[in-house]
Amino acid sequence: MANKIAIDAMGGDFAPQEIIKGVVQALRDEPDLNVVLIGNEDAIRKELAINNYDKELEIVHTDEFITMDDSPKSALNDKPNASITVALKLLNEGKADALVSAGNTGATVLACAKNLHMIEGLERSALAAIYPTAKFTPASKGFALMLDVGATIHCSAKQLAHFAFMGSYYVSEILGVDRPRIGLLNNGEEETKGGPILSQAHKYLKNEKELNFIGNVEGKDVPKGNVEIVITEGFVGNVVLKLLEGVGEVVKDMGKYAFKKKLTWKIGLAFLAQGVKKVKAKTDYSEYGGAPILGFNKLVIKSHGRSNAKAIMNATKAALLSVEHDIVGHITHSIQAFNEKHAIDFLDI
Amino acid sequence: MANKIAIDAMGGDFAPQEIIKGVVQALRDEPDLNVVLIGNEDAIRKELAINNYDKELEIVHTDEFITMDDSPKSALNDKPNASITVALKLLNEGKADALVSAGNTGATVLACAKNLHMIEGLERSALAAIYPTAKFTPASKGFALMLDVGATIHCSAKQLAHFAFMGSYYVSEILGVDRPRIGLLNNGEEETKGGPILSQAHKYLKNEKELNFIGNVEGKDVPKGNVEIVITEGFVGNVVLKLLEGVGEVVKDMGKYAFKKKLTWKIGLAFLAQGVKKVKAKTDYSEYGGAPILGFNKLVIKSHGRSNAKAIMNATKAALLSVEHDIVGHITHSIQAFNEKHAIDFLDI
Repeated sequence: MANKIAIDAMGGDFAPQEIIKGVVQALRDEPDLNVVLIGNEDAIRKELAINNYDKELEIVHTDEFITMDDSPKSALNDKPNASITVALKLLNEGKADALVSAGNTGATVLACAKNLHMIEGLERSALAAIYPTAKFTPASKGFALMLDVGATIHCSAKQLAHFAFMGSYYVSEILGVDRPRIGLLNNGEEETKGGPILSQAHKYLKNEKELNFIGNVEGKDVPKGNVEIVITEGFVGNVVLKLLEGVGEVVKDMGKYAFKKKLTWKIGLAFLAQGVKKVKAKTDYSEYGGAPILGFNKLVIKSHGRSNAKAIMNATKAALLSVEHDIVGHITHSIQAFNEKHAIDFLDI
Repeated sequence: MANKIAIDAMGGDFAPQEIIKGVVQALRDEPDLNVVLIGNEDAIRKELAINNYDKELEIVHTDEFITMDDSPKSALNDKPNASITVALKLLNEGKADALVSAGNTGATVLACAKNLHMIEGLERSALAAIYPTAKFTPASKGFALMLDVGATIHCSAKQLAHFAFMGSYYVSEILGVDRPRIGLLNNGEEETKGGPILSQAHKYLKNEKELNFIGNVEGKDVPKGNVEIVITEGFVGNVVLKLLEGVGEVVKDMGKYAFKKKLTWKIGLAFLAQGVKKVKAKTDYSEYGGAPILGFNKLVIKSHGRSNAKAIMNATKAALLSVEHDIVGHITHSIQAFNEKHAIDFLDI
């Protein structure tokens, strides 16, 4: 059966309840969708019943699963039948076409590397992140994709160029942004900035007409949303992503502090609440379901650990779309064309 | 005459007015302070008169100065008598002990490298930045120092360790934080994170009892103010600093947008204004005057381009303090002790 999406029913803070609820919603919306649910069969059947879903559904039972607090490496070793591992094996055996998981991010990335195959010609996979920006244009939808944010530490120019192709296909085909703008995160706008690796990556990307590469972007462009795709090595992507999360937490804490301490702040915040709600609706993470892990023979969408049913529903729909649009095929093709074009540059002599 | 601080009278958006006003205030507060003002003599004398300062004061006249929009490299070549160059030559000739400039940052950093000498044993100088954090403890004063943010791109473990000594002396002696906490910016807290350079830097710093090194910090720790000193290579520091600036601009833009669009937001913001003012007072950049350029035989304090008189006054006082506390001497001593201890590690064989 084609278009089969594997679902890690046990991953995430609200698993399996919100996971199953979201999948059932996706199944009701998408007649072409098939799923295989991996996890505790009793728990899954119970949730399916709660959601009044009585059609036949494929379930692969396992009693092991990795928690959000588990150490990725040891958990994968200690739990050979963890739901994420079982799910990825199904993918690699061709029994499913893509995967959605809201589980432990580190374990998911590591399990992908262990159980899937890298796309031929690619040297590094990438974990992407979708983050809200200040732009609320219909095109960008107020979100941007950054990659890599954690699958690598440092990257070569070739690897960064590969990331641009992967990000571009995902954002255009799945998030529906026409010719998404791509920026190379750097310490200045000039082409030669950032040292030899980044200036070489800039050269590679500048010559790719298939890509809408606008050049180097700086730290300030990230929250402003001046591009839909930010290309960077995993070390920098990780620092940037956690910094944005940290700023978010600081703002929230200041709000709480204000709410407790000052009557004028309290009144002010109450008045602001309505507006904040509107902004929040525009930047609702669950709209996008999750961020892709790109570079393997099958696409994996990693939803946030706090994903609710809506996020899982949208992640499942995005996974279906990725299969229907053959994202992996497109990426494979563009990576190989790029590598062939630069065959002489890449000779290891 | 000892304790002589050179002042670039022509650098900054509000030069020479706010520069001279700030210096006069510092002179009135600090009987031990001597200054030499570099810039257009007529303009300087006019401002001194406006500020009712009639004592004799050393002025070195030059008609050339570098604007904020000039390209640093070509401006320094095209204007051999630019105020920043003339000032740094005075420093290097021993005619002044430290410098304050609110001018073009890139030109200042480059001019330091051209006209000063690196501290013996040091391989890279560092441009520091002082940024506001969420912590308003009396110890941290709601600010943290990050270095490097732009004098380097990538750094070795040894160079990162040197930055920690430089930052620690500056924050304890000049900002008055007792045993400031130092964090190494990384993509995880574990000692081995971030690749060989960062894990080696971690090893070096862990063994320095003189330093209050608390280990690796992540992106989220930066805005939270969990350390007073963040150590990182210039590339990452630059991205982080500009990201923080970008977030600040986004928040300001959203405030403006809200103010225009919605009555409820308008009322809410009016109520909030009083509280925001209090937070702003706590994180007033001008309190700290500027951020140091560390690693040369003389200390340079780079004030923000938008510095007002208060910022220049505080920068001048900080420069005086750095001379009185012999910051350069302390740094030189600690760098040499560190290098001797690791002499075998650093052998180039």
